[in-house]
Amino acid sequence: MGELTTPPESKQQPRRPRVVIVGGGFAGLQAARGLARLPVDVTLVDRRNHHLFQPLLYQVALAVLSPADIAQPIRSILRRQSNAVVLMDEVVGIDVRARQVSLGSGARLDYDYLVLATGATHSYFGHGEWEPLAPGLKTIEDATEIRRRVLLAFELAERQMVEQGWHSPLNFVVIGAGPTGVELAGAISDIAQLYISHDFRHIDPAKSRVMLLDGGPRILAAYPEDLSAKAEATLKRLGVEVHTQMQVTGVGPGWVEAQGERGNSRIEAVVTLWAAGVAASPLGRMLGAPPQVNFDRRGCVIVDDRLNPPALPEVFVLGDLAHFEQDGRQIPGVAQPAMQMGDHVAKIVAADLAGQPRPAFRYFDKGDMATIGRMAAVADVKWPFKAHMSGFPAWFTWVTVHIFFLIGFRNRISVLINWAWTYFNFTRGARLITGDQSLPGWKEQTEAKPAQSKTEAAD
Amino acid sequence: MGELTTPPESKQQPRRPRVVIVGGGFAGLQAARGLARLPVDVTLVDRRNHHLFQPLLYQVALAVLSPADIAQPIRSILRRQSNAVVLMDEVVGIDVRARQVSLGSGARLDYDYLVLATGATHSYFGHGEWEPLAPGLKTIEDATEIRRRVLLAFELAERQMVEQGWHSPLNFVVIGAGPTGVELAGAISDIAQLYISHDFRHIDPAKSRVMLLDGGPRILAAYPEDLSAKAEATLKRLGVEVHTQMQVTGVGPGWVEAQGERGNSRIEAVVTLWAAGVAASPLGRMLGAPPQVNFDRRGCVIVDDRLNPPALPEVFVLGDLAHFEQDGRQIPGVAQPAMQMGDHVAKIVAADLAGQPRPAFRYFDKGDMATIGRMAAVADVKWPFKAHMSGFPAWFTWVTVHIFFLIGFRNRISVLINWAWTYFNFTRGARLITGDQSLPGWKEQTEAKPAQSKTEAAD
Repeated sequence: MGELTTPPESKQQPRRPRVVIVGGGFAGLQAARGLARLPVDVTLVDRRNHHLFQPLLYQVALAVLSPADIAQPIRSILRRQSNAVVLMDEVVGIDVRARQVSLGSGARLDYDYLVLATGATHSYFGHGEWEPLAPGLKTIEDATEIRRRVLLAFELAERQMVEQGWHSPLNFVVIGAGPTGVELAGAISDIAQLYISHDFRHIDPAKSRVMLLDGGPRILAAYPEDLSAKAEATLKRLGVEVHTQMQVTGVGPGWVEAQGERGNSRIEAVVTLWAAGVAASPLGRMLGAPPQVNFDRRGCVIVDDRLNPPALPEVFVLGDLAHFEQDGRQIPGVAQPAMQMGDHVAKIVAADLAGQPRPAFRYFDKGDMATIGRMAAVADVKWPFKAHMSGFPAWFTWVTVHIFFLIGFRNRISVLINWAWTYFNFTRGARLITGDQSLPGWKEQTEAKPAQSKTEAAD
Repeated sequence: MGELTTPPESKQQPRRPRVVIVGGGFAGLQAARGLARLPVDVTLVDRRNHHLFQPLLYQVALAVLSPADIAQPIRSILRRQSNAVVLMDEVVGIDVRARQVSLGSGARLDYDYLVLATGATHSYFGHGEWEPLAPGLKTIEDATEIRRRVLLAFELAERQMVEQGWHSPLNFVVIGAGPTGVELAGAISDIAQLYISHDFRHIDPAKSRVMLLDGGPRILAAYPEDLSAKAEATLKRLGVEVHTQMQVTGVGPGWVEAQGERGNSRIEAVVTLWAAGVAASPLGRMLGAPPQVNFDRRGCVIVDDRLNPPALPEVFVLGDLAHFEQDGRQIPGVAQPAMQMGDHVAKIVAADLAGQPRPAFRYFDKGDMATIGRMAAVADVKWPFKAHMSGFPAWFTWVTVHIFFLIGFRNRISVLINWAWTYFNFTRGARLITGDQSLPGWKEQTEAKPAQSKTEAAD
């Protein structure tokens, strides 16, 4: 496959700088948009055709929203930006000397500026074999897989009850109590307690157990302590069992093993979800090795206040893939800093084109928020005022902010309708089970019981 | 696994008849609802957790609607019907002597009445190997797979154009020109011509070719001839190439072979869709063999005017799985007769309980409709007046009827918003590519060209 053919250049004008952006998440998309009015040619490369509004992904996983409510084709977001081309392809190599990226399809793209914003993925801490047993939540496919498992668990239990008069315990285990883990645990509890309990005749979904495990001393470790405590209290009120200081040592089909202060325990789990580890996308490593490019322990690229790895001023690393420290603290891997970094890259390119010095990046932190089930949240507000909010006010702020930042008018309306439907009708609009109809470990459980009864009968 | 434990019976009352309904489509669901007020115990068994509003499924395939817009959990539709239990399970055997069905999970259900309404599936006329190459449209998974392929074709062509300066021809081939084939062909043409053309920089989606092939002499063979002709004219105006009298003889990765009046031809196809053959669900065969149970050539169970196979008065076969003739013509496999049959089963059970003779079923035909792309349709209206409609009036009627029959308020609102968005903004709301990122035959095509160029260079 050949190299990208450069369009014939006019002799009057110098060649326009080529900016290659890899990743159409918050950071990459914002960088592309920021470059709209500059005399540069932008190529945004993503493996996916869509930008995902990740903060609402857990609502797809828990059957409130449809995938299309929170995803939009990158191509259609940038349709009016004439200096931008969108390529659905995968970057498989970066040659920082030749200033080229190689694509999965075999072609190569030349760049004058490279913007890497490919984010992060799950990390199972060296236990890749846990992934099929305990899916994480990063993509649309992850979300529909979690939805499938959670909804299927209730269906299989009802079936077992009707057909055999007993059912396997409905234990849902969420590993990792960061914002995603807290959101998932709260939402599963909501579903079980409020949304589907009247749909079943033989099981009582409200008797499900939801367990949230974390290795650290408190949930939402990145939040102030009082908000962690409030979040934990809210989760407990929702019936979620919160177990901190519990290190997961094993995940199997239908069970989780964890090491706590009181020793090792094995928990039966009909569905196990993973919200514990995050690892940087492997693209950072393609930039080279230390000392030219340095990484933190999660594989994130350490960048300076111009968002570059020290030796590569034409390469910007943004969003979750970047490790950027401000005031001695690493800024978190969430949407706000990613978008600000995207904006900032455009400012740096503009400065370069104008022959001005590059401005330094500074993260303007407006605060953090996490929802905890129906109508409760915690918010560590830092702007326009400082406050620790919790309960309904925090939740209302969360709803407003998320609707405001959702891309596209249609999505906003659709999300609002789905929320209204969910909150007022106590039912979930997207309760679809698609794909396979089995759960890891379920069959064994089904067969375990009669076998046990037989043993008892033989005694 | 044991048999279903019957609840302890009260001695004063006779046991309530047990009705087992297999299939939660239009027929099965309507039968369940019809039985709501009768003193019977209903168990509805379906492999899926959702009822699907199949007439709008092609709109999921062509990125207008989300799956959840047209699917709803059967369990939640029947949540207020206290005499109904919903089981997500698969029926794997029927014992008409013992009046039992066996389930995939190993259990058995006793019945006094059995209602079989498991519909139909694709038939590849003995060429099962064509299925992965030319998916059909029956389930949500089918629809998202078709969406994936159609959207991906444009993405891959744009990529090829950017990287190599040429692209494989964007030929879409739809095999079978019944209502589904016509809807798919019209909708693909719509997408290519109207909805995505401004999103691409290097390819012109409007130059795609959409080919609709059918073995018969005219499209929409079940419709009056004048409507067939109008539909064909509309399709041609949309740019669809209609080829009748073309028998498909082979389907491969990236191509279709067909035998027409002018001999055999091989068509390059980036996406091939199957809308040609329908075969009855295999459940009919589980009822036994002729002469006790008779089948037509598609495997449908031939039923009398009480909807029974002649020798089995306690077994009803409904919807697409049934072959029912009225006035010398088989009634079609669409939603209207299916729902009427469902209603009728409830009437028959009520008559039995009251000791009255069973009423005969008569299909009340209100007419048929098929859409053909944006704002055009044909309608063979038979009630409340007789008319052959086409163009916008037929399309408007189609929209009204389909919104009216959609189950659930939320779905109606959501579908209306999506339609409004699509029609007024010329963009599609659900343009998601999920799953795998390859197309059958695409890689070979990509590699074919450079190889060819090399040969030319060597000459």
